[in-house]
Amino acid sequence: MTAKIAAAAGEVAGPGVEIAAVCPDDGPAAIESHVDEARAAVAVVELVERDVRAGGSDAYVVACFGDPGLDAARELVDVPVIGIAEAAMHLAAISGRSFAIVTTLSRTLGRAQDLLARYGMTDACVWMSGTGIPVLDLEEATGEAFETIARHCREAVAQGADAVVLGCAGMTDLCHRLADRVGVPVVDGVSAAVGLAAAMVRAGVGTSKRDEYAAPPRRPVPVP
Amino acid sequence: MTAKIAAAAGEVAGPGVEIAAVCPDDGPAAIESHVDEARAAVAVVELVERDVRAGGSDAYVVACFGDPGLDAARELVDVPVIGIAEAAMHLAAISGRSFAIVTTLSRTLGRAQDLLARYGMTDACVWMSGTGIPVLDLEEATGEAFETIARHCREAVAQGADAVVLGCAGMTDLCHRLADRVGVPVVDGVSAAVGLAAAMVRAGVGTSKRDEYAAPPRRPVPVP
Amino acid sequence: MTAKIAAAAGEVAGPGVEIAAVCPDDGPAAIESHVDEARAAVAVVELVERDVRAGGSDAYVVACFGDPGLDAARELVDVPVIGIAEAAMHLAAISGRSFAIVTTLSRTLGRAQDLLARYGMTDACVWMSGTGIPVLDLEEATGEAFETIARHCREAVAQGADAVVLGCAGMTDLCHRLADRVGVPVVDGVSAAVGLAAAMVRAGVGTSKRDEYAAPPRRPVPVP
Amino acid sequence: MTAKIAAAAGEVAGPGVEIAAVCPDDGPAAIESHVDEARAAVAVVELVERDVRAGGSDAYVVACFGDPGLDAARELVDVPVIGIAEAAMHLAAISGRSFAIVTTLSRTLGRAQDLLARYGMTDACVWMSGTGIPVLDLEEATGEAFETIARHCREAVAQGADAVVLGCAGMTDLCHRLADRVGVPVVDGVSAAVGLAAAMVRAGVGTSKRDEYAAPPRRPVPVP
Amino acid sequence: MTAKIAAAAGEVAGPGVEIAAVCPDDGPAAIESHVDEARAAVAVVELVERDVRAGGSDAYVVACFGDPGLDAARELVDVPVIGIAEAAMHLAAISGRSFAIVTTLSRTLGRAQDLLARYGMTDACVWMSGTGIPVLDLEEATGEAFETIARHCREAVAQGADAVVLGCAGMTDLCHRLADRVGVPVVDGVSAAVGLAAAMVRAGVGTSKRDEYAAPPRRPVPVP
Amino acid sequence: MTAKIAAAAGEVAGPGVEIAAVCPDDGPAAIESHVDEARAAVAVVELVERDVRAGGSDAYVVACFGDPGLDAARELVDVPVIGIAEAAMHLAAISGRSFAIVTTLSRTLGRAQDLLARYGMTDACVWMSGTGIPVLDLEEATGEAFETIARHCREAVAQGADAVVLGCAGMTDLCHRLADRVGVPVVDGVSAAVGLAAAMVRAGVGTSKRDEYAAPPRRPVPVP
Repeated sequence: MTAKIAAAAGEVAGPGVEIAAVCPDDGPAAIESHVDEARAAVAVVELVERDVRAGGSDAYVVACFGDPGLDAARELVDVPVIGIAEAAMHLAAISGRSFAIVTTLSRTLGRAQDLLARYGMTDACVWMSGTGIPVLDLEEATGEAFETIARHCREAVAQGADAVVLGCAGMTDLCHRLADRVGVPVVDGVSAAVGLAAAMVRAGVGTSKRDEYAAPPRRPVPVP
Repeated sequence: MTAKIAAAAGEVAGPGVEIAAVCPDDGPAAIESHVDEARAAVAVVELVERDVRAGGSDAYVVACFGDPGLDAARELVDVPVIGIAEAAMHLAAISGRSFAIVTTLSRTLGRAQDLLARYGMTDACVWMSGTGIPVLDLEEATGEAFETIARHCREAVAQGADAVVLGCAGMTDLCHRLADRVGVPVVDGVSAAVGLAAAMVRAGVGTSKRDEYAAPPRRPVPVP
Repeated sequence: MTAKIAAAAGEVAGPGVEIAAVCPDDGPAAIESHVDEARAAVAVVELVERDVRAGGSDAYVVACFGDPGLDAARELVDVPVIGIAEAAMHLAAISGRSFAIVTTLSRTLGRAQDLLARYGMTDACVWMSGTGIPVLDLEEATGEAFETIARHCREAVAQGADAVVLGCAGMTDLCHRLADRVGVPVVDGVSAAVGLAAAMVRAGVGTSKRDEYAAPPRRPVPVP
Repeated sequence: MTAKIAAAAGEVAGPGVEIAAVCPDDGPAAIESHVDEARAAVAVVELVERDVRAGGSDAYVVACFGDPGLDAARELVDVPVIGIAEAAMHLAAISGRSFAIVTTLSRTLGRAQDLLARYGMTDACVWMSGTGIPVLDLEEATGEAFETIARHCREAVAQGADAVVLGCAGMTDLCHRLADRVGVPVVDGVSAAVGLAAAMVRAGVGTSKRDEYAAPPRRPVPVP
Repeated sequence: MTAKIAAAAGEVAGPGVEIAAVCPDDGPAAIESHVDEARAAVAVVELVERDVRAGGSDAYVVACFGDPGLDAARELVDVPVIGIAEAAMHLAAISGRSFAIVTTLSRTLGRAQDLLARYGMTDACVWMSGTGIPVLDLEEATGEAFETIARHCREAVAQGADAVVLGCAGMTDLCHRLADRVGVPVVDGVSAAVGLAAAMVRAGVGTSKRDEYAAPPRRPVPVP
Repeated sequence: MTAKIAAAAGEVAGPGVEIAAVCPDDGPAAIESHVDEARAAVAVVELVERDVRAGGSDAYVVACFGDPGLDAARELVDVPVIGIAEAAMHLAAISGRSFAIVTTLSRTLGRAQDLLARYGMTDACVWMSGTGIPVLDLEEATGEAFETIARHCREAVAQGADAVVLGCAGMTDLCHRLADRVGVPVVDGVSAAVGLAAAMVRAGVGTSKRDEYAAPPRRPVPVP
C-alpha cells in the first residue's frame, strides 16, 4: 500500500516536489478500528519526530483516512501537516455543494463523522457508506471490489452528492476509473493532500504555533 | 495523582462499589499536549486489555480530562466506559443551563472543544479558561494555585456559567472547596464518572456493540 | 403506572436510596399533547412545593418523557431535579455514538425534538418513531404492544442507532426484554434518572441557583 | 398592562381588524420565572378553550414574551396562534441581519434562548440583556426606567445588533421612543404579532393540524 | 407572470394597501440558474433605484423565490424589503413546526439551501423537492402540471412536513387549490411577503441602516 | 490592483502554471457593498463566458473576497472555479484550529458571514474585524494603512485566532510582512486560490456538473 500511495502522490506532485512515502515499522497492518487508530497516531508521532531529527521536510501528509496523530504531528513542526481525510473533504467541498464518503468498513464512519465536525464539513457531507471491503483487500482491487465501490459511488450520486470522497488511502489507484464511471468528481485524499501541501508551502502558510500547536512542554523525567 | 483520584472515586462510590485506580507504567507523566494524548490513548488500551484478560470489571473510567483512548477502550468491552470530561460535562449540563471549563494549560482547550462537540455540549459551554498551572503542579495544590483556580471559577460565573467543570483530574480534591467559594456547582470529572458508571451498571446500560464499538477485526499478523 | 415506575426506580436505586413515587391528584390521566404537558407542569410544581414544605428530598425526578415542569421545579430547590427524557438521552449518549427514540404517539415527537435541542442531543439522535400506542394502553403491555415496540426498536438499529431510548415512563417494565430482543442498550428514563440522581447527590452537584434557577421573585398579591 | 397591550394592538391593527385583549382571572400577576410560565401556559389554554366555546376568533396572539402555552393553544384551533417573542424575532430578522433582546430580569433569558432555538433565531440574535427592571415596574415607565432600557438598547447596537427586540409586552408603549433614540428598528412583539396574524389570515395560512398540533386525544375520564 | 403576481398580491393586500407589480425590461425570462440569479439581482437593484428616484414606496417585495438582489436592495432604502422565499419560510415556520419546499427545477435547491441557512430555517425545512417543471411552463398551469405539484405536496406531508412552501412565484395561483388537496397550510411567497410588508409598515419596522445595509459608499468615478 | 493580484498569483504559481489576470471593463471600481457585489457577479459571468468562447482555461479564480458570481461561474465550466475567500478560509482552517478575518469596511462582514456558513467555516472563524480602510486606499498601502491592518491582526491573535485571513485582494502584497509582524500564518486569498487551483487540476478534480452546477437551461428568447 505504501508503494501505491507513493505512486499516487508522485503523479500529482508537479515539478519541484519530492515525495518520501514512509510506513511505520510497527504500526497496525491496517487501520479499521479506534484501537488501530490509537496505535497509528503514536506511529505517526514517531515518524515525524524521526524525520525532524533527520532535518525535516517542507510539509507532512498523514496518509490514512482517519487522520491519526494529525494534531500531535502539528505540535512537532511549523510546516503544513495535512490529513488525507481533511484534504479530500476540503477539495470535494470546492468541487460542488455536497459530497459523499465511500469507505471500507462501516465501523469507521464514526471517526469520519468526528472529522467532518472538526473540519466544518458536516453539512457538506450528505451521505456516507461502508462497502464492507477490508482495507487489506484493497491491495489488489480486483474487478469485484472495484464494482462494489463503483456501485456505492453511483448510489452516492443518487443520494444527492455532487462529488465522492474515497475513504481509504488504499483506494487511491481507483480514483480516475471511478470518476469516469460515475460522472462526478471523485476525490482521493492522497492526491488532494499533496496538492494542498504544495499550495500551502508556495503561499508561505505553515502550522500556527500560537498555543494549541506550539511545541509540547518538556517535563523533567519522573523519578521511578 | 493516582492516589488522589482513587480517594475521590472512593468517596463517591457508595455501598457495593469497589474502585481499582491504575496508572500505566510507561504513559506520559502528565497529559498536556496532543502528543501526550496519543501516548496516553495507547496506554489506556493496554490497561483495559490487561484488565479484560484478568477477568474484567463492571465499568471503566478514563481519568484524564482529554478522555484519551475512550473510543478505543469501548471497542474492547461491552460494559460502560466513561471519560471524566464526558461525565463532568453531562452532570454539569443537568445542574444548570450552562457551564464553564477551568483547566490547566490553555493549549489543551482545543481538545476540550473537540470533546464538547462530540458530546453535544458546545452550546452548553459558555466559557473556557486555562489557568496556566501545569498538571504536575497540582500534585500539591498550595494556597496560590487554589486561589488562581478559584479566581478563574469566579470569572466563569461572571461570564454567565451556571456551573464550573474542572478540566483536570488533578483538581479533584479542590472541588468542594471551590464550590463553597464560588456558590455554584463545581463538577469534578472523577466523581461524576464514578457515579455515572454506577448508574449505568444498575440500569443495565453498557457499551453498544452494534458496529463502531464492536470488537476490532482480527487480522492475520503480516509477514515481515 | 405510578406503581410500575416505583418498582423500576426501586430496582436500580441501590443501597441507601429511598424512592417516593407520587402522582398528582388532578393532573391529566396521561400526557400525550401539549395541553396535557401544560397541565402536568403545574402539577409537578405543586408536588415539589408540597414536598419542600414537608421537609424536602435529596433529589427530584420528573417521570414523564416530556420533562414537564422541569425548569420550574429547578427554581424551587437547590438539589438535583432530573427529567427522565433528559436522563435517558444522557445515558444513551454515553452507551454509544447515536440513539433512537421509540415512543407512544407520533404527535409527541415535536416535544422530544425540543428536548433534544435543549440537552444538546440533536445530533446524537438519529431516528425517532411513534408506535401509535397510547400511553394508557401500556398499563398492561400485552404481547401485541410489546411486539410492536420491539419492531420499532429493531428498525431503530437498522437505521443506525447504537442504542434505543424508550419515550414513555409506561414502557419502563419492558426495557430489559427489549434489550434482549434487539441486542443493543435500551434505556429507560426512570432507571436512568434514579441513577443520575444518586450520582449527583454523591458528587455533591445540585441545581445551580445562579440566576435562571434562583427562587422565583415573590410579588405582592395584586389587589383585585 | 392589558389596556396598554390593547392600545398597541389596536394602533397597528389596520382597517377591518378587531382586537379583543383578555387577561386570565387567576394567572400570575407577572411572568418572570419558569413557575410563572407554567401557570400562564395553563391560563392561556383555558382562555383559548373559552373563546373557542364562545365561537372562536380568526387568530390568537399570546402576549407574553415567553410565549407560554403557545404549542398547547395551537392544538386547540386551526387558525394562526402567534407568540409575541416569535413575532418580534421573525420581524427583527427581516429588518436586518442581527438583533438583540432587551428584557426585564436576566433570569428570563434562559427561556428566551429556548425560544430562539425553537424559531431558528439563535444565530440572528447577537446579544441579550436583562435590565433588572421587574415587569410590574413597567406599568408606569417613568423616565428612569425608560433611560435604563434606552441605555441597554444603545449597548445592543454597539454590540453589533441591527435591530432591538423588546423582551416584554409591558414595554410596548416605549417602542417608538426607543427607536427614535437608538436609530435602528426597535421591535415590539405585540405590534409584530398583530401584523403577522393579519398577514396569515389574509394569506389563508392557519395552524397545521397534521400531527403534533392536531386536536389532543380525548380520553375516558379515569374513575377515581 | 407579472400579472399573476399582481393578482395574488392584490388579493391579500387588504384595505389601504396599493400594489405596483413591475418587471425588469431586460432581466432573464425566468430565473432557474445562478447565472439568471446574478442578472436578476442587478435588475432588482435598478428597479429599486428607479422607484426611489420616482419618490419611493412604503415597502418592497422581491418576487422571485431566490430572493435575488435582496441584500443590495436593502442598502438603497430604509423601508422594509422582503423576499418571497424569506416571507414564505417565516410564515410557514409559524404555521407548524416544519415545512417542505416544492419548487420547479431541482437545480435551484442549492440556492434554497443558502436562503434557509441565511434565515435560520435550515432545521425547520424537513424536505425539499424539485418537480422538474420549468418556470415558464407554469404560465398556464394545466391540469398535468397541477397534478405533478400536488403529488409532490402530498409526498411532503408524508415526509413529515406540517406545511408546504411553494418555491416559485409562478405557482402563486395554485396555492389555495393545493392547500385544499393536501390538507395542510400551503404558503405562497407573494401573499406572505405582501402581508409581512403591511405588518412591518404598520409596526414601524423598516430596514436597519446600521452598517451592512447603510447606503453604499459613493466613490469618485475612476478615470479610464 | 489587477497588476498587484497578477504579481501575487505569479509568485506562487509554480512551474508550468500560467496566470491571466483580467478585470471587467465596466464592473464597479471597488466592491464594498451588496450593490457592488451584484454588479461584480454579472461582470464575472461575462468574463468567464468570454474566456470560454476564447478556448477556456484550466481553472478560474474569482479575486474578490466576496466571491461574487462564484456559483454562476461554476455553471459555465467543468474545471475548478475558486473564490479567494473560499480558498483563504480553507487554507487557514488547515493551518490551525481557528482563524480571524481582517478586512476593509465593516459593512462587508455580513457577506463574509454568509460565505463562512456556505463553506462550513462558521465555527473556525473566531473573530472578524473591519479596519475602516476603503478598498481603493489599499492601492498604495502606506505605512499608516499597514500599521492599522497589523494592529487588527495582532488583536485577532489576542482574541484566540491561530491564523489571520486577509479580507481583500488589495491586501495581497502585505501578507508576508504581516505574518512576520504577528507571528502566526497570514493567509492571502489570491495565493491560496492559485495553489488550490493547481492542486485541483493536478488531482483531476473539477466542478461537478451533477445538477446545481450543470450548464444553465437555454430558453427561447422571449418575443418583446
